[in-house]
Amino acid sequence: MPGSQPKPTLRSHFAGRRVLITGGLGFIGSNLARRLVRWGAQVTLVDSLIPEYGGNLRNLAGLQGRVHLNLSDVRDRHSLPVFVRDQHYLFNLAGQTSHMDSMNDPETDLEINARSQLSILEACRRHNPSIRVVFASTRQLYGRPDSLPVNETHPLRPVDVNGINKLAGEHYHLLYHRVHGIRSTVLRLTNTIGPRMRIRDARQTFVGVWIRNLLQGEPFEVWGGEQLRDFTYVDDCVEAMLLAASSDAAAGEVFNLGGPPPVSLLQLAELLVAVHGSGSFQMRAFPADRKKIDIGDFYADWTLIQRTLGWKPRTSLRSALARTLDFYRKELTHYL
Amino acid sequence: MPGSQPKPTLRSHFAGRRVLITGGLGFIGSNLARRLVRWGAQVTLVDSLIPEYGGNLRNLAGLQGRVHLNLSDVRDRHSLPVFVRDQHYLFNLAGQTSHMDSMNDPETDLEINARSQLSILEACRRHNPSIRVVFASTRQLYGRPDSLPVNETHPLRPVDVNGINKLAGEHYHLLYHRVHGIRSTVLRLTNTIGPRMRIRDARQTFVGVWIRNLLQGEPFEVWGGEQLRDFTYVDDCVEAMLLAASSDAAAGEVFNLGGPPPVSLLQLAELLVAVHGSGSFQMRAFPADRKKIDIGDFYADWTLIQRTLGWKPRTSLRSALARTLDFYRKELTHYL
Repeated sequence: MPGSQPKPTLRSHFAGRRVLITGGLGFIGSNLARRLVRWGAQVTLVDSLIPEYGGNLRNLAGLQGRVHLNLSDVRDRHSLPVFVRDQHYLFNLAGQTSHMDSMNDPETDLEINARSQLSILEACRRHNPSIRVVFASTRQLYGRPDSLPVNETHPLRPVDVNGINKLAGEHYHLLYHRVHGIRSTVLRLTNTIGPRMRIRDARQTFVGVWIRNLLQGEPFEVWGGEQLRDFTYVDDCVEAMLLAASSDAAAGEVFNLGGPPPVSLLQLAELLVAVHGSGSFQMRAFPADRKKIDIGDFYADWTLIQRTLGWKPRTSLRSALARTLDFYRKELTHYL
Repeated sequence: MPGSQPKPTLRSHFAGRRVLITGGLGFIGSNLARRLVRWGAQVTLVDSLIPEYGGNLRNLAGLQGRVHLNLSDVRDRHSLPVFVRDQHYLFNLAGQTSHMDSMNDPETDLEINARSQLSILEACRRHNPSIRVVFASTRQLYGRPDSLPVNETHPLRPVDVNGINKLAGEHYHLLYHRVHGIRSTVLRLTNTIGPRMRIRDARQTFVGVWIRNLLQGEPFEVWGGEQLRDFTYVDDCVEAMLLAASSDAAAGEVFNLGGPPPVSLLQLAELLVAVHGSGSFQMRAFPADRKKIDIGDFYADWTLIQRTLGWKPRTSLRSALARTLDFYRKELTHYL
């Protein structure tokens, strides 16, 4: 497992250092926190625990007393200077991630994904300009790809309110690097899967709902089925974030993350059932309201971060699904 | 003068129609209002009259009683549905335009240029989805050009907070067209000059301060001097807005505006002094804080709007400067 055999050099950047994670009770944030605590970092988590978002207290199981948890919202601009001061690293992961929610309530998406990012960066500029920041962005910015795989020079044409606001959040991070010298790195994430992801509904990823249904013995729904997608296992995502935070070459840069070769949704569904050993799914036509903001096939070209930081996805899709299923077989009740 | 010989077909779109202009007391908004009133439209102006922005009650001189003026701020989301309901056209021009102000107070820029745009579009979607909208965007979205002239396919790389937020505002307009059917057109304006522009300071355009100093008998300052810029005369800009609002071919599209062949700032300064018949200027190095967010040479390729809507800049730079100087010779005291 990539996480259990870290390079000594990467680990040494974080041992004893102060690290702030916004969205720290969420899927990626909590996996990152677990790694950092194991490495001896002093970790502070900020999370709003909004029920529709990714935060879950269960994600901290076993870490109680070993991290500082502050339940608050990144929209609360007055607390941000307190959190940001004296930190060596900021992993800025708090966000509204649902595309449909962003269309139904665009102002909330803007408040979280754009306005709060500006507040966080202003707090860094005023109170801790030497902090290193990693911002979790999204492949959603690219919109419908002109060609595949998609690299970082592809035009940015967001197809929903979430993509527009995440694009603003990304631009702020790059601007504050360029103009104010805040060492920020942007990672554009594709579908990320693994233990501690939200499985209650499809707000974070449709794979979550598939796994929930599978483990509850119910058929899951595959919409369309032909679309190509790539998947990053969460441990690989965490490693990319740690590499980005610790490397001078990453400051002011934008990197795609990606995964093993892409699969169609139908192939993913078949693989999931095969790995689990049983289960079934139903094919459904793509709902009309989602089709309007759908991006079609997508998979990322991640050679830039490979060349620059030496990152690559190490976990096969089969292993990623197997580990995720293992986790939820034991933990299902805590995530429903 | 382009405004005094309108095509009957363009005029006929607006006679007797209800038109809302946000930022209606500003430079472009008031010139647009004057044309529309002359053409028999029922015009409502919304303006905040924030002292640092472009609104000026003097811009309405002669129109009293012929327009409906509502002093309010586009950030006031509760009044927007009232304004939007029952309008045939919305010219959405309210904005924070100062690049330096956006860097010093980024949240205010975001509130006006991004969040309020979302509120306006939500009001259109809920209360008047058949409205036609023209949004005033900016060449600032392009950042430092890769090549000249810049057409609409040039990558968007805003170099300041203002550019980032205007980009979000632009994206919202296009998204609400694509997903919700609101017929929006985006015009990316370059430097626009003419009567009723702000001359008190450089918040709207540096040309304003030049003219003020010239008319007050003081030397004006030319920063750098080598940079190439293009200039649209305000009557030409107004005509583009009216064409965009009235043409089905414009819905969901983005068009650059531009002007006669570009000139260097030094050439512009020399032409301005020549047209005025006297005056002087001083060359200054570019200030460091502005250099960080400067875009270098810029001039727009406006052939797309020419091909699609038949627009072209009709006013020479010399005529534009002469008419502007004429206006401020009479009106100077009202604009200081």
